Parts: sequence; C-alpha cells; structure tokens
Amino acid sequence: MSEGNDGKNLLNYTNIDDLNEQTYKHLVPYTSDMKTTKTFLYATLDMILRYIAEMNEHDSPVIKNGLRTPDEYRQMFAFEIDDNGIDLYDILANCERVLETTVRSGHPRFINQLSQGVDMISLAGEIITSSINANMFTYEVAPVFNLMEESVLAHMRQFCGWSNGSVSAKKGDGVLAPGGAVSNLYAVLAARHYAFPEIKVSGIRNGLCPAMIISKHCHYSIKQAAALLGIGTDYVYEVEPDEWGRVSAEKIEEKIIACQQFKLTVFFVGITAGTTVLGAFDPIEEIALVCQKYRIWLHVDGAWGGSALLSSKTKHLLQGIDKADSFTWNPHKLMSVHLQCSAILLRHTNVLMRANQMLAPYLFQPDKHYETSLDTGDKTIQCGRHIDILKLWLAWKARGDQGYAEHVESLLENANFFYETICKRQPYFRIVMKPPFINVCFWYVPPSLQSGDTTSMAYKERLDKVAPQIKERMMTNGTMMIGYQRLDDYPNFFRAIISNPATTKEDIVAMIDEIHELGHDL
Amino acid sequence: MSEGNDGKNLLNYTNIDDLNEQTYKHLVPYTSDMKTTKTFLYATLDMILRYIAEMNEHDSPVIKNGLRTPDEYRQMFAFEIDDNGIDLYDILANCERVLETTVRSGHPRFINQLSQGVDMISLAGEIITSSINANMFTYEVAPVFNLMEESVLAHMRQFCGWSNGSVSAKKGDGVLAPGGAVSNLYAVLAARHYAFPEIKVSGIRNGLCPAMIISKHCHYSIKQAAALLGIGTDYVYEVEPDEWGRVSAEKIEEKIIACQQFKLTVFFVGITAGTTVLGAFDPIEEIALVCQKYRIWLHVDGAWGGSALLSSKTKHLLQGIDKADSFTWNPHKLMSVHLQCSAILLRHTNVLMRANQMLAPYLFQPDKHYETSLDTGDKTIQCGRHIDILKLWLAWKARGDQGYAEHVESLLENANFFYETICKRQPYFRIVMKPPFINVCFWYVPPSLQSGDTTSMAYKERLDKVAPQIKERMMTNGTMMIGYQRLDDYPNFFRAIISNPATTKEDIVAMIDEIHELGHDL
Repeated sequence: MSEGNDGKNLLNYTNIDDLNEQTYKHLVPYTSDMKTTKTFLYATLDMILRYIAEMNEHDSPVIKNGLRTPDEYRQMFAFEIDDNGIDLYDILANCERVLETTVRSGHPRFINQLSQGVDMISLAGEIITSSINANMFTYEVAPVFNLMEESVLAHMRQFCGWSNGSVSAKKGDGVLAPGGAVSNLYAVLAARHYAFPEIKVSGIRNGLCPAMIISKHCHYSIKQAAALLGIGTDYVYEVEPDEWGRVSAEKIEEKIIACQQFKLTVFFVGITAGTTVLGAFDPIEEIALVCQKYRIWLHVDGAWGGSALLSSKTKHLLQGIDKADSFTWNPHKLMSVHLQCSAILLRHTNVLMRANQMLAPYLFQPDKHYETSLDTGDKTIQCGRHIDILKLWLAWKARGDQGYAEHVESLLENANFFYETICKRQPYFRIVMKPPFINVCFWYVPPSLQSGDTTSMAYKERLDKVAPQIKERMMTNGTMMIGYQRLDDYPNFFRAIISNPATTKEDIVAMIDEIHELGHDL
Repeated sequence: MSEGNDGKNLLNYTNIDDLNEQTYKHLVPYTSDMKTTKTFLYATLDMILRYIAEMNEHDSPVIKNGLRTPDEYRQMFAFEIDDNGIDLYDILANCERVLETTVRSGHPRFINQLSQGVDMISLAGEIITSSINANMFTYEVAPVFNLMEESVLAHMRQFCGWSNGSVSAKKGDGVLAPGGAVSNLYAVLAARHYAFPEIKVSGIRNGLCPAMIISKHCHYSIKQAAALLGIGTDYVYEVEPDEWGRVSAEKIEEKIIACQQFKLTVFFVGITAGTTVLGAFDPIEEIALVCQKYRIWLHVDGAWGGSALLSSKTKHLLQGIDKADSFTWNPHKLMSVHLQCSAILLRHTNVLMRANQMLAPYLFQPDKHYETSLDTGDKTIQCGRHIDILKLWLAWKARGDQGYAEHVESLLENANFFYETICKRQPYFRIVMKPPFINVCFWYVPPSLQSGDTTSMAYKERLDKVAPQIKERMMTNGTMMIGYQRLDDYPNFFRAIISNPATTKEDIVAMIDEIHELGHDL
C-alpha cells in the first residue's frame, strides 16, 4: 500500500485513534460492547458527510486528480487479500481512499449518465435497509417491505391509468428489478409467456417462430433479452426512426405484415419513452392501436422517460400508455433514487407469476398461516432480492407527487437553458436536434473545423474524433463528465443529461465553457 | 397513520426537533447549508445503532409483538403517497417504525434463511457505496470498483484452483450478480452459448434439442433458467439423490446416455455444493470426469456451500471444483456480507462476454482512451449494476483468509452443537440425517405423536402439521424464527441454519427449548 499514509492522513475524526489495533472482533456482534461499533460507524458517517459537502462545492473536481490508469489504482490500493486481516483504522483509511479517488456521480457537473446525484433521503433509506439486511422473497421475512412495494407499484400503475391506486382492487402487477435491463427482460419474458405459454415447459420447439419488432433506438437490453430467451437477435426486427428519433405506427404495421408473410409470429413490439441518446418518445397511442389490431404485446421502455408521467406538463409525451401491456420505469434515473431501483409494471395481473412460478416447497410453503400471494419471490427471476423499495418510498413520501412534478419541471427548465445556451454559442456548438425532453445533444466544432464541406466523409471523420479527444482531456483533468456517442450516420456528439437537482444554470455555463476550453485547439 | 404518534415518540435524538417542519429542500443539494443534512443523517445513524444494540440482547424478540396481518401493517403505516410531501421528522418517524416492526434478520435467533446477521463492515461498505451512487458498467465511472471486483473474483477463483490469484495472468472470468438465482442463470446461459453459440443470433430453431441434467435437490433457479432460456422445464432431467442427498456420477451418466438415445443434446449438468435444505455436497470430482467424457458443461451451485472452500477443514467437500466449468458462490450467505452479493465464477475466460455482448455504441464506445476490456457492462445481463464489491472487499480485508476460515469452523462447531443437543433431546426431537455441513434438519415430535405406527400415512400426515403450527405460534410470539419444509417423502421438518456469528450455544439451547415449549401440546 505504497500511498497508504496518504489515505490515513485524511482521517481526522473524533476518537478515530481508538480504532488503531481494533479489529472486526471488536465490533458487534463479535462483542456486545457497542463502543467500537459506535466510533467506527460515526467515523464512516463523518467521512461521507465531508465527501458530500466537498462535492457540493460546484468548482471542486468530479474526479480528484483525474482518471488514472489501472496500474496507478492498483498501486494506490492493496486490492489483494492476505491471510491476515487489517485493523479498523485501515478499513476506514481504505474507505477514505475510495472516496478520494472515486468518480463523483453525485457532483453537479457529472452529467455522464442518466443516473446521477446523491439524494439524502435515498441514502438514509439505504442505511436502514442495510442495517436490516432482509430479503424480499417472502412476506414472513419482509412483511412491511412487501406491502410497501405493492403500494408504491400500484401508485406507479395509477400514473399509467392501470389502477386506481388502491391495493385492494388489484389491477395489474409489477416488481422492482435490479436495473432497467432486467425490467426489459421481464417484459419480453412476460410477452413470450403470454403468447406461448407452452415454452416454459416444452421450450422453443415444434416449429415455433417467435419474432419481435423494436425501434432501432430501443435500449440494447431488449435485443439482449431476445438472445437470452432463445428468440435470437436475428428475429428482432428493427424499425427505422424518423429524423426526431420516433418510430411511426405505419412502419411498425408494415414490419408486422412482412413478418407474417415469412410465417413468423410477432409476439412483442418494443418502443421507448425517452430514448437513451436523443430522449425521443415514440407515439404510444397510435402504436398501441396497431398492436391491439394484431394482438401483439406492447412494451414501453420508460426507464428514462417514464418519469415524464409525474408532471402534468410532460405526461402527454406518454399519451396511450394506458393501452400498453408492460412498462419499464426506473426511479433510479430521473427520480434521483439511488441505484438500483427499477420497476417493471404490467397491465396484466397474473402473467409474471405464471411465467416464473416454480413453487419451490422449501420457500413458498402452501401451508403457511398467511395469504401466500403476498410472497413475491415466486414471480421473480431472483430468489434472494434486495430491498429497493424503502429508499423509493421515503423519497416519494418526502416530496409527494407535487414535489416530483416540480422536480421534472425544473430539470426541463435546465435542459431548455442548456439548449438555448448552446444555440447562442454557435458556430462552435451545434445542436443535433431540438431536445424532445431532457437530453441535449450537440457537437462541439472547433475553429479548425469551421470551414470545409460539412457533408463530406473526410469532414465527418474529423468531427468524429473531436468528442473523444475532449472527453479524454476532461477525464485527465477531472473537471466535469459528459457522455458522447455516434448514432446512425452522425459522427460522435455529446449528450448532456441533467437529472441531478444539484446542477445549476451556473454549472451549465461553466461546463459549456469548459468544453470550449478543452476543445478549441483541436 | 393511526399509530403515527407511537413512531414519533420513539425518536429521541439530539437536535431531532430541528427537523420539525424541515423538508427535503433543507437537505443538500437543495441547499448548500449542511446543518439539516447532518442532523438528519446523525439521527438515522443513532436509530440504527439503537436497533443494533437492542437486537444483540439475545432474549429480545426477533419480531416485536410478532408478525401482524397486512391490514394491521397498512394501518400502522400510511403507505399511500399524497400530493404533498411529509417533513423530515415524519420521514425519520417512518424509519423508526420500519425498524420497530421489521423482522430482525440480524437477530441471533433468526435462523430462518441462509442469509442472516448484520455485519458492521458490510454496513459501512454499503453506506459508502450509497453515498457514491455509482454504476459498475464502465471503467470510466467506477474505475476502483471494477478493479476491486476483478481482484476479488480472481481471489475467489484461486480457491477453485482456476487462477493463481494474479489479475495480470487472467484465467477464468466472473461477475457479481444480484443473487444466486441470477448467478445460476448466467451459468446455464454460458453453457448454452458454449454448446450452441448460434442460439444468440438465430434462436432455438432448426431442430435443436438442448437438454439439461440436474440433481433433484438442485436449487429451483436452475429449472427456472431452463424455462427462461427457452429450453423448457420438461427438458431438465432430474437425477434422484441417495439417502444423504447426493447424486452419484453413475446416475448422471445413465441419464446422459438415456438423453442421447432420445436424440437430446445434453449441454449442462448442474450439481450442488451445499443443498438448500439438507446441506449435501454432490461428489464433484467423479461427476466432472463423466462430464469431461461427454464434453458437457459442469456447473456447481455453491451459493450456500461454496464458502466451505475457505477452511482447510471443509474444502475437501468441494474436491474436484477445479474441473467444473462454472461455480456460484454467494458471499451474502455464509460470509455474512449483506445481501445482495453473489458471484458467478467461470473457468473459461471469454464465454460470458461472447454470450452477452451487444456492443451498445452509446455506452461501450470503441474509441475510448482506456482499455475497454475493463468495461464489465457488456458481459452482464444488467446494464446499470449496483456496486456489490466494496462491502465484500472490506469484509474480507478485515478478516483476511484466516478470519474467514475461523468463521466457517466456528459455524460448523455451532452446527455440531445443535446436532448433539437435538440428539440428546430424543424422543421429542428427531434428526433427519447427520448434518453434512451447517444445515441441521430435524422433526419436533410432540408427546401426542410418541406412539403410533411412524411409517403409516396417517402418522406422517399428523407429523406434517406439527412444524407449520409451531412456526405459526413462533411468528405470533416473535420469539425466534426457523424454516421448515417437506422434502421428497419426508413430512414437514425444521431446517436450522446458523450463519450468523452472533448466535451462541446459549441461543441454540434457548431455541430448542422454545420449540418444545411451543409444540409440546400439539
């Protein structure tokens, strides 16, 4: 641990020296004396309080000293585990080192991912959750958490128009999953089971030819689900979106008809509410009518944009969601709830259970003394399941529906400000398209690329290299973080996402300035 | 919130009144003033410290006032979310109510599940993890955590004999998954891809007849994976275990030959190191030789018993693991790391990546300025992935390999004491079989069942009802928690699992006394 002392010197908490030469055996339950446990956990809390305070100085770095190479980190940490343990002081020194070197996803200028920010209510929820260390699979070991999840999922379905929010009149279903990709997997699985219930038992045999239709801009997890579920990625037919990144109902219908001509059974149409890059919303209402006509399961991936339902100003973006069959909605993205927290919601009441139920007798005993439908474990693909509901419930209780509506609206205002500022900075900044939602996509065009045939291949190739070079400099400096990618024929461009309530208009201006600063000589 | 005030009265922390009428807007990042944030998080910590202290009074209840009905909990909590938010005082009052009503999985007398206990080092790890709120999918956003996971997984593979523990000479592969069921799903998926790489793209078509062979006592998630992956549960052939719950290599081979006669392609054999109920270890070495002979992927589910590798006194139970192709090992079970923390380990280096890679250009850009093989996201079925590694790494660093060896040995000693005590309490307690590992399975036979033809159907039916009735009383009293289940022809019996280092010999005697107390009049 060559830089070990650096880590240690950072620790400067009350009573911390008490932890020298104390080991895990001085913590409960190894001892009944709470003294060391208290010092240890207070020091942990003090450490994160300082981290949080520091991160909220907007000019502070997103990555202190920038991103380093794997070997540099390996030298900084002694990742290897030895025969002998280390003392509690060293445990905390390692924690401090983690906090010092980490990429600060909660920093106001980290706009690299859809999930960002650090939310104090989520954090409190996770602390309680971890202290209980329970498992969601049965009512008997997690009664309150299961009822809480049931209630919150019903509330979410109410936003879809699938439920009146009352748990007693149960309509629809849902479960919290470890991330949006798994939620999308549930959707494809539920659709497959709905269309081909025999596959669960008999497999894909006897000349079944299941096929899926998705927008080309769908999240990759839907194609991955097709690979996983034995459908095969070749049988996932992509529909080309329009210039705004939206697929039309007409094109979906054309593709359905084409599949039918090839004797394929389309069982799933997947569209998106808030695409990953552009933030586009496919027209749910029209596509739902086509799906109804052909009796095909319609899944809407609103992992990112589902939260638009929370504000009366944006819920029109999901017009028709009441007609969808399933819906992915990740509170760990736009709702600032800590990762992992993703919901898969279904309009159908029993499909998840029928698709997944294995009736393991050691866990889901039929002779329990309570209503065993409260055991959620048998409808999931997990056995042990982490409690993701407490942080979500607390975060929502604290804000109320109104607080989340305001949150969405203020993020939209920030996105609009970002867009307008970019427009004013032409010709060095060029917008990809007017943002349909919170995603602001743009190119940085350095002075050296201000002239030339912008439609030529050579120009595109040069522009394609700009964003990665700026990103590399950004990561080396650690000043901010924003993502970039290619899309269709577009060369690499930046995608700004602000879902962190910490990010201010001043941050936006500072980040735009920083990109110019980092890229103007390219 | 009819019992709302009860919750509030429980709060008795310094400065807590400061939180009255303070809302989430008084927390960072909504304000830059840290005052309320500090009070709020200190109060959260004080709450869990009291919870932890209380739980470690061994005579305290596992469930205060016992398990209640859903409606009772619904009255106790206002699960519904309103338009308006609640203040921070009420948020904490709800947290307190959660802690007051929860099933205390960390209690020394909670022996209901394989995962149990509350570990202070895990807890500190989760607090840090949640404060960072990062995502594992790419190196650029979680460099230290990805390197840490790579290193710990290599260490785990070293216990399997697949790696020399050095990351640089990379042998094998692995990833942390959200629970053992998902780890087992990865195993079946990897095996399917290894045998039929074309399925990823083309689906299960063209007369493919994939089949799997498992022990009848395998975890249900393997059959569920077959349903999910399009194999079908009918094509999962179960081998009957012997009286000790172990399947023999001969029976596996017979089944392989039978499948071949039916033109089925067996691509997966699944056995268990530490079965869920009995704790039996299938003979890996012999079965591996059969699998090698027929070139079939061998998966060992050591979700529970994998940790036997940690002690030189028990590692012989997994003799032959070096010849397996994949291995599930859950630190969130026997290693006391908080849920979720499950590893899927592979002897093969690139199968996971080849099976799952989708190359989403917005996330896994090929033109990054670092070695993109460090981006683990493209080999998983998750996109967003929670950081499960920090708590595991810290827990292991604190104990060292030696500390975990001692942990396993002391749990075995407790299991042995449990077994011996049960034996001494005959005829009211009757052992199912001599424990092969930590699981102690036994019947409680009340005085009323001491006579009669124990082999008759009527007797078995009466004995079958005893454990559920005792469990119901136990849950109503909240004094302790232990699981029961049927297995094969055995009527319901109890399964005692002690993986919590908090549980003492006195607890064991007290729990055995309690079962007698609760059941003697049945």
